Amino acid sequence: MKKIAVVLSGCGVYDGTEIHEACAALLALRRAGAEIVACAPAGPQLHVVDHLRGVPTTGEVRDILVESARLVRGGIRPLVGLAASEVDGVLLPGGFGAAKNLCTFATEGAACRVHPEVETFLREARDQGRPIAAMCIAPVILARVFGGGGKPRVTIGDDAATAALIEAMGASHEVCAPTGIVVDDEAGLLTTPAYMLATDLPEVFEGAEALVKKLLTMCP
Amino acid sequence: MKKIAVVLSGCGVYDGTEIHEACAALLALRRAGAEIVACAPAGPQLHVVDHLRGVPTTGEVRDILVESARLVRGGIRPLVGLAASEVDGVLLPGGFGAAKNLCTFATEGAACRVHPEVETFLREARDQGRPIAAMCIAPVILARVFGGGGKPRVTIGDDAATAALIEAMGASHEVCAPTGIVVDDEAGLLTTPAYMLATDLPEVFEGAEALVKKLLTMCP
Repeated sequence: MKKIAVVLSGCGVYDGTEIHEACAALLALRRAGAEIVACAPAGPQLHVVDHLRGVPTTGEVRDILVESARLVRGGIRPLVGLAASEVDGVLLPGGFGAAKNLCTFATEGAACRVHPEVETFLREARDQGRPIAAMCIAPVILARVFGGGGKPRVTIGDDAATAALIEAMGASHEVCAPTGIVVDDEAGLLTTPAYMLATDLPEVFEGAEALVKKLLTMCP
Repeated sequence: MKKIAVVLSGCGVYDGTEIHEACAALLALRRAGAEIVACAPAGPQLHVVDHLRGVPTTGEVRDILVESARLVRGGIRPLVGLAASEVDGVLLPGGFGAAKNLCTFATEGAACRVHPEVETFLREARDQGRPIAAMCIAPVILARVFGGGGKPRVTIGDDAATAALIEAMGASHEVCAPTGIVVDDEAGLLTTPAYMLATDLPEVFEGAEALVKKLLTMCP
């Protein structure tokens, strides 16, 4: 049974992990017989967004790990205590949390910094030949960490502005449909646009299923 | 296209809507071509539970409607403004929020009171011949509102203590597998155990799919 680390960033599209994307990935993993190792960094979210009104709340503090635990009914581990060697592959769902809590892309664009625990974990995973899958906006993290000489190929759908920032970080962006995936076999990376492009849940689930299916074939 | 009201109670199994159950229902509804009308009562949750440690936090207040909005990317309506005549059917996912925020079952058992907005909406829906589906622990709300002479048939799986409380509220409990459903055609109610009995996501999705499929056939 393959073990896949699912790296979460909170719970809710505007300040954490996109919930439908996470559930789609978790379902696809379980249906394929994979074991889920949910994890997240501990520490305060960038902010808390009122998802009814779409605006940040004032003075409220929520912890990334604590909120992420909602998505997996409490079954989660602090990322700091997880070694890449414990899993066979990695999956990052999207949501603004990936760009606000796991890195600073939402506020700093191509000059973003990746959360040290996330960067360490991803580098370890790649050094050990573990494939890394990312959905929605989470591929910007892969561009920041692995961009450069090799120009890894990723997708966030077809948003030109985001694609340009990905290119600026030394990765190569490919346009892709929400039900499709972009696979860079050499880099061990695979990505799908999810809600960067999808307009409905079934598309998100179809994209996640394709991503997971391919991810599991790439595990050592 | 059938319109289904999905009544939410927050976001997270221990103090709100169970996230996997909600996503399973939403996905099944969209795959079947139904329109989703997400709704929730506004007002404070009973409490906030730290899902990492499994214990209530102190002094934190979260709003049922605002947190429910996370589950549907902001696309939600206050229950108070929704008329049953606007939809063709109703679905209540589970999670402790159903028993803590939509009624007081978690603290008062068979003597529980149902949130006035929820009770009004459900009575209106049934008076107008709209079917009502419920998952997990949410059937206790149906037992409280519709229990009595007709002894409506519902399931919460096979938990004997909860089943006894359902019987005490004037409903009839039937044991059911997590992938199955209990249908009371006369009462217009249908229920599935979900995480009251399921041990994994695929079971929850299978039960939700069966529930939604039947719900849509019962709509006027």
